[in-house]
Amino acid sequence: MVPRVLFGKGCFDQLPEILNEKRSIGAPFIYLVDDVFENNKSFIERIKLKGNDKIFFVSAEYEPKTNQVDVLVEKIKTEFQLLPSGIIGIGGGTLMDLAKAVSILLKNTGLAEDYQGWDLVSKKAIYHVGVPTVSGTGAEVSRTTVLTGPNKKLGINSDFTPFDQVILDYDLTLGVPKDQWFYTGMDCYIHCIESLNGTYLNTFSESYGQKAEELCLEIFLGDHLSDEQMRAKLMMASWHGGMSIAYSQVGVAHAMSYGLAYVLGTKHGIGNCIVFDHLEEFYPEGVKIFKQMKEKHGIKLPQGLCKDLPEKDLNTMIEVSLQMDPLWENALGKNWREIMTPKKMRELYLKM
Amino acid sequence: MVPRVLFGKGCFDQLPEILNEKRSIGAPFIYLVDDVFENNKSFIERIKLKGNDKIFFVSAEYEPKTNQVDVLVEKIKTEFQLLPSGIIGIGGGTLMDLAKAVSILLKNTGLAEDYQGWDLVSKKAIYHVGVPTVSGTGAEVSRTTVLTGPNKKLGINSDFTPFDQVILDYDLTLGVPKDQWFYTGMDCYIHCIESLNGTYLNTFSESYGQKAEELCLEIFLGDHLSDEQMRAKLMMASWHGGMSIAYSQVGVAHAMSYGLAYVLGTKHGIGNCIVFDHLEEFYPEGVKIFKQMKEKHGIKLPQGLCKDLPEKDLNTMIEVSLQMDPLWENALGKNWREIMTPKKMRELYLKM
Repeated sequence: MVPRVLFGKGCFDQLPEILNEKRSIGAPFIYLVDDVFENNKSFIERIKLKGNDKIFFVSAEYEPKTNQVDVLVEKIKTEFQLLPSGIIGIGGGTLMDLAKAVSILLKNTGLAEDYQGWDLVSKKAIYHVGVPTVSGTGAEVSRTTVLTGPNKKLGINSDFTPFDQVILDYDLTLGVPKDQWFYTGMDCYIHCIESLNGTYLNTFSESYGQKAEELCLEIFLGDHLSDEQMRAKLMMASWHGGMSIAYSQVGVAHAMSYGLAYVLGTKHGIGNCIVFDHLEEFYPEGVKIFKQMKEKHGIKLPQGLCKDLPEKDLNTMIEVSLQMDPLWENALGKNWREIMTPKKMRELYLKM
Repeated sequence: MVPRVLFGKGCFDQLPEILNEKRSIGAPFIYLVDDVFENNKSFIERIKLKGNDKIFFVSAEYEPKTNQVDVLVEKIKTEFQLLPSGIIGIGGGTLMDLAKAVSILLKNTGLAEDYQGWDLVSKKAIYHVGVPTVSGTGAEVSRTTVLTGPNKKLGINSDFTPFDQVILDYDLTLGVPKDQWFYTGMDCYIHCIESLNGTYLNTFSESYGQKAEELCLEIFLGDHLSDEQMRAKLMMASWHGGMSIAYSQVGVAHAMSYGLAYVLGTKHGIGNCIVFDHLEEFYPEGVKIFKQMKEKHGIKLPQGLCKDLPEKDLNTMIEVSLQMDPLWENALGKNWREIMTPKKMRELYLKM
């Protein structure tokens, strides 16, 4: 788990003070910042760069890739004599995942793709801090960093992946566009449904998942919260949803969304929504409520993504998704292959 | 926050494996174990001592004291050439607090009483592990270790206090006597009421406090849970209740219970219950539900503890309680001294 957490309106301004304690002479702090902030001078000034600290602005338009991590690591190693004092990720799930992966790869030899899997990392990562500016993915609290590699979309799951420090300042999510707010929030809601209906569930995950779900219902179906309350609560929902997954797993929506992402590059949040919308069979109550939320917020999901897809691509999609054994086992039990056959999955994808 | 948590039935058996990774040659692991386990051979065997590891059995009959910590630290330093590889606390809140304090004092010079307060500890504590065998206090997750010293009952609150590892095995709470189960569980419930009704509340604490409260209601007023579910859920309630306090504070019941403990040695759980039973004025809904829980479980609280108390002792009690500024401010706001006068508190104590 993340050992240090700061929560509160405006607490982002405490970042420089926190980092000061961790600074080694000559070793910079490297900031990986979502490029939506690139021209936001007042925001950038709050970071208060010192010495040879450097910001890399990164686009979150595409899902994070293993070679993107390798390029960043190479750049940092070439430009600086010393390893950084720390890596700070500022942005949504993409930036969270990149910061976690870069901090691991700066200390572990080889390529990012070598570590996709479970517990393959042997050396402690560089000190790394997560500052989420979009709520929902739970990437700020999770033990994974999900990357698309040459062969698969899979996380680097390890004890060294979680952030050393997280800063939860819900005012940083001001200005997130409505559709992104919905898709990323639904990522959290879908986590809860998948975790709470999974076979891996225990009382630890259950209590976190229930709280996150309750907060999502309040935020996305309620009418009584102020904008600020909604932002604060969604940040906590994301946190609890991530905690729920830490001791459990996601399920059908995530497994199939990984296939979409791998072949079509569909982003994680919207991908989960597109898939989940067609999963009544597996999560009847959850999907019913999801449709109500979609309706309430006037969200129109893309349709027909797969219907004209070349056979080869459709097969790759199915293959990538069926590789996610732990997700399928959590969702459908040990005999999941009898339920989710390639034929069955093809039918589902063709509806999307 | 605690960076590593293991949860599950029987997971206590993973302790030896976890400790192996942290062992330095010649440096023992020191186990502080509640002496209710002293004659429980099968339990003690599960600890799997190695080399010069040693168990100290400690009575939890009295609240933990600063000089008790000093004596333990002295014993360990005298008996072993090297500082321990780690300290493992096994028991209820008393053992949790002793393990946390001993691990701090082994690395920081002086006496335990020197560190009662906020952020007075300068050096990282020795690696320490908490294994709760009673649920409710939240001591397994909190940033404090509450000790009775020569001048006050107050916690050592610091970034170095929390455990490095916690093992939540709800089967270890099998066999807790019913009254202790109730009192310690109510400590958790009272945490929630105090935190949720406090002026320090933020959305982080609120979401944890609400979940802990919900679990308490299910456990202590519901009729549908198995014994095992109740134990698992109470362990999570304790956890969430402790997390809620991490970013908030307790209130009137804890502040007054500290006075009782200081003068009469009243234990924390029962002390909170005795006080809370008379706090309708401050927590009307919470106290009403508390009385229902008491009724349902046939709990009879001691009466008339203070009515024959010498004037001097009563004054000490009031004084000790009124020292707890942050608790009072959380409960009653910045002007709390106008509400909770010594006269008002005397009236309350005399009812107990």
